Amino acid sequence: MKLKFPILFILIAAGLNVFAQPISKQQQYQNDSTVVSRLATILLTNSTGYEDLRILCKTIGHRLSGSTAAAKAVEWGKNTLINAGCDRVYLQPVLVPKWVRGQEEAQVIMQDGQKLNLEALGLGNAVGTTADGLEAKIVEVRNMEELEQLGVENISGKIVFFNHEWRQGVINPFKEYGGCVEYRWAGPSKAAKYGAVGVIIRSAGSGYDNFAHTGSMRYDTLYNKIPAMAISYLMAEKLQRMVRAKQIRAVRMFSNSHFEPDVLSYNVIGELTGTDAGKEIITIGGHLDSWDVGEGAHDDGAGVVQSIDVLRAFKKLGIKPRRTVRCVLFMNEENGLRGGKEYARVAKLNKENHILAIETDAGGSSPRGFSLSMDKTKKEKVLGWKNIFYPLGVYDFAEEGGGADIGPLQQAFNTPLMGLEPDPQNYFDLHHTNKDVFEEVNRRELTMGSVAIAAMVYMVCEHGL
Amino acid sequence: MKLKFPILFILIAAGLNVFAQPISKQQQYQNDSTVVSRLATILLTNSTGYEDLRILCKTIGHRLSGSTAAAKAVEWGKNTLINAGCDRVYLQPVLVPKWVRGQEEAQVIMQDGQKLNLEALGLGNAVGTTADGLEAKIVEVRNMEELEQLGVENISGKIVFFNHEWRQGVINPFKEYGGCVEYRWAGPSKAAKYGAVGVIIRSAGSGYDNFAHTGSMRYDTLYNKIPAMAISYLMAEKLQRMVRAKQIRAVRMFSNSHFEPDVLSYNVIGELTGTDAGKEIITIGGHLDSWDVGEGAHDDGAGVVQSIDVLRAFKKLGIKPRRTVRCVLFMNEENGLRGGKEYARVAKLNKENHILAIETDAGGSSPRGFSLSMDKTKKEKVLGWKNIFYPLGVYDFAEEGGGADIGPLQQAFNTPLMGLEPDPQNYFDLHHTNKDVFEEVNRRELTMGSVAIAAMVYMVCEHGL
Repeated sequence: MKLKFPILFILIAAGLNVFAQPISKQQQYQNDSTVVSRLATILLTNSTGYEDLRILCKTIGHRLSGSTAAAKAVEWGKNTLINAGCDRVYLQPVLVPKWVRGQEEAQVIMQDGQKLNLEALGLGNAVGTTADGLEAKIVEVRNMEELEQLGVENISGKIVFFNHEWRQGVINPFKEYGGCVEYRWAGPSKAAKYGAVGVIIRSAGSGYDNFAHTGSMRYDTLYNKIPAMAISYLMAEKLQRMVRAKQIRAVRMFSNSHFEPDVLSYNVIGELTGTDAGKEIITIGGHLDSWDVGEGAHDDGAGVVQSIDVLRAFKKLGIKPRRTVRCVLFMNEENGLRGGKEYARVAKLNKENHILAIETDAGGSSPRGFSLSMDKTKKEKVLGWKNIFYPLGVYDFAEEGGGADIGPLQQAFNTPLMGLEPDPQNYFDLHHTNKDVFEEVNRRELTMGSVAIAAMVYMVCEHGL
Repeated sequence: MKLKFPILFILIAAGLNVFAQPISKQQQYQNDSTVVSRLATILLTNSTGYEDLRILCKTIGHRLSGSTAAAKAVEWGKNTLINAGCDRVYLQPVLVPKWVRGQEEAQVIMQDGQKLNLEALGLGNAVGTTADGLEAKIVEVRNMEELEQLGVENISGKIVFFNHEWRQGVINPFKEYGGCVEYRWAGPSKAAKYGAVGVIIRSAGSGYDNFAHTGSMRYDTLYNKIPAMAISYLMAEKLQRMVRAKQIRAVRMFSNSHFEPDVLSYNVIGELTGTDAGKEIITIGGHLDSWDVGEGAHDDGAGVVQSIDVLRAFKKLGIKPRRTVRCVLFMNEENGLRGGKEYARVAKLNKENHILAIETDAGGSSPRGFSLSMDKTKKEKVLGWKNIFYPLGVYDFAEEGGGADIGPLQQAFNTPLMGLEPDPQNYFDLHHTNKDVFEEVNRRELTMGSVAIAAMVYMVCEHGL
């Protein structure tokens, strides 16, 4: 009987873990580092992410919300997540807009009657012209200030050529995009305000080439909805010369692009269930829809397959995550963000506990960092892991930001956000163009992005945020 | 007369600069940062480096030492340096080897008599076969240890298939290349030591594709010179399956590749003369020759045009460098290093004062860092400039190294060396293959490499090393 108490004591003590030595910082670093290294190895040697991307790009191709291809992509995403070994895969219904590109034409008519095809690419969400098209004089403006200065008397009845220059000297093209995209997004209505009848913009892109960049625009309900198209860098240079030399009599635009009724579509969701009692959720994701040009390879097929890659790697290594890791392939990032909004709405409804969301939607080049959108204490915690990420080539945590799809989650819960930051130099050469195809993505660069996200998910699973 | 002394004093003091406030560290950083920013802007907006690369790749193409194309590249290099505005452009004569790839063939003959073309690519510097070719049994070895274990009794009279695997799990492919290249460089003689009559190697490359990688090999004079060829990843997988299933009766090899007499060629050199009295020289360069496949775009057209870019940017901005900046387009890096050796020999002869050499020969992807080969004090000085480089995406100075062409300079003078380190992930997909073409290089990524070197040259010009 003498032994009874000590044995009981030992059992209780073991249960309460009071004898366990706290693990040293060094030991913790070693443990984490070993797991991250195993994640890197399994992804670089065994990942099928690149092959997934090939299938998505080559057998489905581009996949604008509401299209048949988008529906196929949903099926593909579901099956790919099931094959990756998720504990649970499901579709989250979401009504999406269906914008349909029709025939498009933009033509310069010279003073001498000669014609030149501008090879224009309509902006997403733009209205068409009447069946006859429209014909009007063209007026060049280089920025919003010039538009205002010219005013109604010089703009009314004309087609505005937004000839806003992409400044190549800006080292990070994402920063320059921020300034240029305004002309695409808001330019048509700003011009309509002064009575313009159509808009042609110099593409928001960095390439010196023949590729026009499409992308979302939004009409201000106060003004007429007028057609809007983008032209490539080289075409913009040509048009600029002709306009300035007063060689142009008129410009003709025709388009029958239009919206059709909303379509039922889905966010595609796969989960590895966490072992914690708190049911904390880490969301990782990219968007499944793309613009209706190219193959949506960098934007955002890359992010989609990377997100799936992370779950597959955890599963292959037999890592049982402490927190639930949820991979979301968002629908309709490009022209409505309905998927991102619906995901946050349902999460709120279900009173879910979201501790982090990571988006990968900046292309499939080698990762360099994560942007962070969270409070200072959390940022400091992440910065404390720098040595874990440095060997992966991931060193930069200085930028503020997350991603479009996960923005609504932050609004709903104040969830901390991160965005994967790949090398940014080539992205805006091909963003929203016919050049954004599978061949432009490198297997090892893409996979290193998966490794970076997997490492971050692992660290937050283990250590919280 | 009363004023005389003070005036004299002031004049002397001004001359001796005793009144000059020492510039604060913060102010110095601001000044440097401003110049680096101007270098970035001028290069990203006005550089013709990418267009130079297009011309080199598309009008001259690949340019192995001693070839007509290499001679054209010398002329092109000279003219391009003259047009870049160098103070002095000259050719440094150097005799180079001339290895000529002839017809090449490698064929598997199956037990049932069927034949399969291995699409092999001869290794550079390898001998040909006799006119009849050779036919022998094949034996697979996965590493040098297996070769030794098999020994003369199992190797003699056979063709050795060096089936050494590229470990995809290694994060930095340059580190993996170091281990794999031994089979290409030394494999043929190691096999000949045991009586092998030919060698076929699995390419030293990271791509899962049909591209065979050539590259230098060297015979050990102790053993027979035997022919040696590389096969692609996919072909190696196929050959491995057939060998292990014992489906192969014999392998046939034919080649009439050979050396011709040495040819007079040149290092192409352009200088901006420094304003210092010490005549200190900073060498920057890449190599003008390439393998005789693809277009030598990443290896090393990229390094060539970046080096020229740096001088052009200094000239355009009107920066008069304190030290002489010398751009060297080295000849014969790929199969002899004669250019690098001759450059060091002449420098020694002329008792030149070399304070730094930077090589860019690791591809045209976005820069991430510089390897450093120099003493601790100098390394610390460079590390003190980290904040200047961080905004360029250049953050890593941890690796030891320089470059092949500048190695002899270090041997001659103990000159500190640096190597530009671009993102490494895609390089060994295309290194020494037909895939290394202009289209694989991105303009902005290439130019950011020029920016990084220009910034480093500026810092060392201003602050010494």
